[in-house]
Amino acid sequence: MSKLGEFELIQRYFMRVIQDSNILLGIGDDAAALKVPRGEVLLTCTDTLVAGRHFPEITTAYDIGWKSLAVNLSDIAAMGGMARWATLALTLPVADPTWLEGFAKGFFALAQQYGVSLVGGDTTCGPLSITVNLLGTTQASGILRRDGARSGDAVYVSGYPGEAAWVLERILRDEPVGELRCRLDRPEPRMSLGRYLRGRASAAIDISDGLVQDLDHILRASGVGATLDVARLPQRGADIAQPSLQHKLAGGDDYELLFTLPSGQQIHDWEQEPVLTCIGHIDAEPGQRWLGLPHSEFIGLRGYQHF
Amino acid sequence: MSKLGEFELIQRYFMRVIQDSNILLGIGDDAAALKVPRGEVLLTCTDTLVAGRHFPEITTAYDIGWKSLAVNLSDIAAMGGMARWATLALTLPVADPTWLEGFAKGFFALAQQYGVSLVGGDTTCGPLSITVNLLGTTQASGILRRDGARSGDAVYVSGYPGEAAWVLERILRDEPVGELRCRLDRPEPRMSLGRYLRGRASAAIDISDGLVQDLDHILRASGVGATLDVARLPQRGADIAQPSLQHKLAGGDDYELLFTLPSGQQIHDWEQEPVLTCIGHIDAEPGQRWLGLPHSEFIGLRGYQHF
Repeated sequence: MSKLGEFELIQRYFMRVIQDSNILLGIGDDAAALKVPRGEVLLTCTDTLVAGRHFPEITTAYDIGWKSLAVNLSDIAAMGGMARWATLALTLPVADPTWLEGFAKGFFALAQQYGVSLVGGDTTCGPLSITVNLLGTTQASGILRRDGARSGDAVYVSGYPGEAAWVLERILRDEPVGELRCRLDRPEPRMSLGRYLRGRASAAIDISDGLVQDLDHILRASGVGATLDVARLPQRGADIAQPSLQHKLAGGDDYELLFTLPSGQQIHDWEQEPVLTCIGHIDAEPGQRWLGLPHSEFIGLRGYQHF
Repeated sequence: MSKLGEFELIQRYFMRVIQDSNILLGIGDDAAALKVPRGEVLLTCTDTLVAGRHFPEITTAYDIGWKSLAVNLSDIAAMGGMARWATLALTLPVADPTWLEGFAKGFFALAQQYGVSLVGGDTTCGPLSITVNLLGTTQASGILRRDGARSGDAVYVSGYPGEAAWVLERILRDEPVGELRCRLDRPEPRMSLGRYLRGRASAAIDISDGLVQDLDHILRASGVGATLDVARLPQRGADIAQPSLQHKLAGGDDYELLFTLPSGQQIHDWEQEPVLTCIGHIDAEPGQRWLGLPHSEFIGLRGYQHF
């Protein structure tokens, strides 16, 4: 291991030339100074990845870098926002140049894709853990909140929930996962979909703790319930390995969007990835009723538990 | 240990009624939504505290909560900003209610003092570590940067640098520290001083890694050097324990402000705490020259090393 000071480390791996006239001061002072475009509001979110808890120890540095930003982008997507500026708090057991180079590559690959600039951070020595704070902006009128679902709204989910949990389970058992591995290691934040849903969806959330648990956040915040159908849960062609119902309903780490659509709203013109699937509807009675799933089995389903 | 879910934990310890019309959405959605007052720019900074590294393991939960916000407030102070909104990424080995209550009390004691609202965060399970992201605002014209020091400017420092390092050393040796303990555990961010220095100081930084190392950041960013005098370093009355020269020049964790003042500027009307002491002046030749300290001894001084 070469001896790297904090300042050399930042200089070498995390200073990128940034083209953003809204950045008055980036990395290198006590704080960054930023200009929020007139008429827009600021969005802020933060997510931590802890080694062995949020990713298997064998995960590559590239994928850890990617995922640490992706999980935060997903939160901005779920608000309908544009991602702009990130700070990175990186806690490392050692300053290993090979690891740092891989991490930075993964982080900046995704950052560049979505126009995110790294404007500050902190590097500390300790058990591997990464906290990103991500700032975004959006018009105040278009914010996708959790509390706007109303009785009669359709419930939609993007992509194929459960695949990340399926992959994780197989990795931990040393079973092959093929191309689906990226569903765990390189989640694709649904930025375009989030922007598209502004003015259309009545509520939205990203699925990080499991479909049932995250749907519950919308239902409680909105003071409503939902009736859903197990048979309508999205699934790929039969030749691709299938997540179980447990994976689909309670698996975490999917970073798909779950949203509700008032009956007047159309989304027929959405022709991009990911696929959107209607899985049920909102009704007045609190709680979730799943057709095709006995209540006793539903009770046994738990999403990701943080403690 | 009682079994606390993430959502109950947030609800019980971290949801506070907030009076701030600039907060459109606080804790409880995928991201918080905030309004930056017109004409002001946004400041963002982040700092991590790792158990055993940034505070001794015996530190109380209250003091950890306090310090995790204080170190970030100090960065906003060093920019001349007003602190406004924080997110808290809390990684805990267990969700211990007694610890959480103490932590929240310390955090919010300081948050309320400076009008900071907690608007979001993440709680994860892992080795104890706390990352706060703090957002502040300020007029663009008044930002205190690191790169504005010019030859002839006076170099000032606030308070009594070295005391935090002195306390830490004694704690690790099981020696008594008396009232000075708060200098390590409850740093007072220099918010009023930072605001006062806007339009006065030509450069500023907070001392977190040691006076010599942090002064070096100003000198390098500004392309200048400095001549300083060991005999002018601030010290309290003789009856209070004295930090060594090593503590004063290379001790970390002080969170005092180090700043430069153009010759035309006056600070005679500063009558509050902390005391301000002129310790030397900026000159054109790069590097630091310390009167009363042989160059060989200066070379041996190193500030806080992150790795």
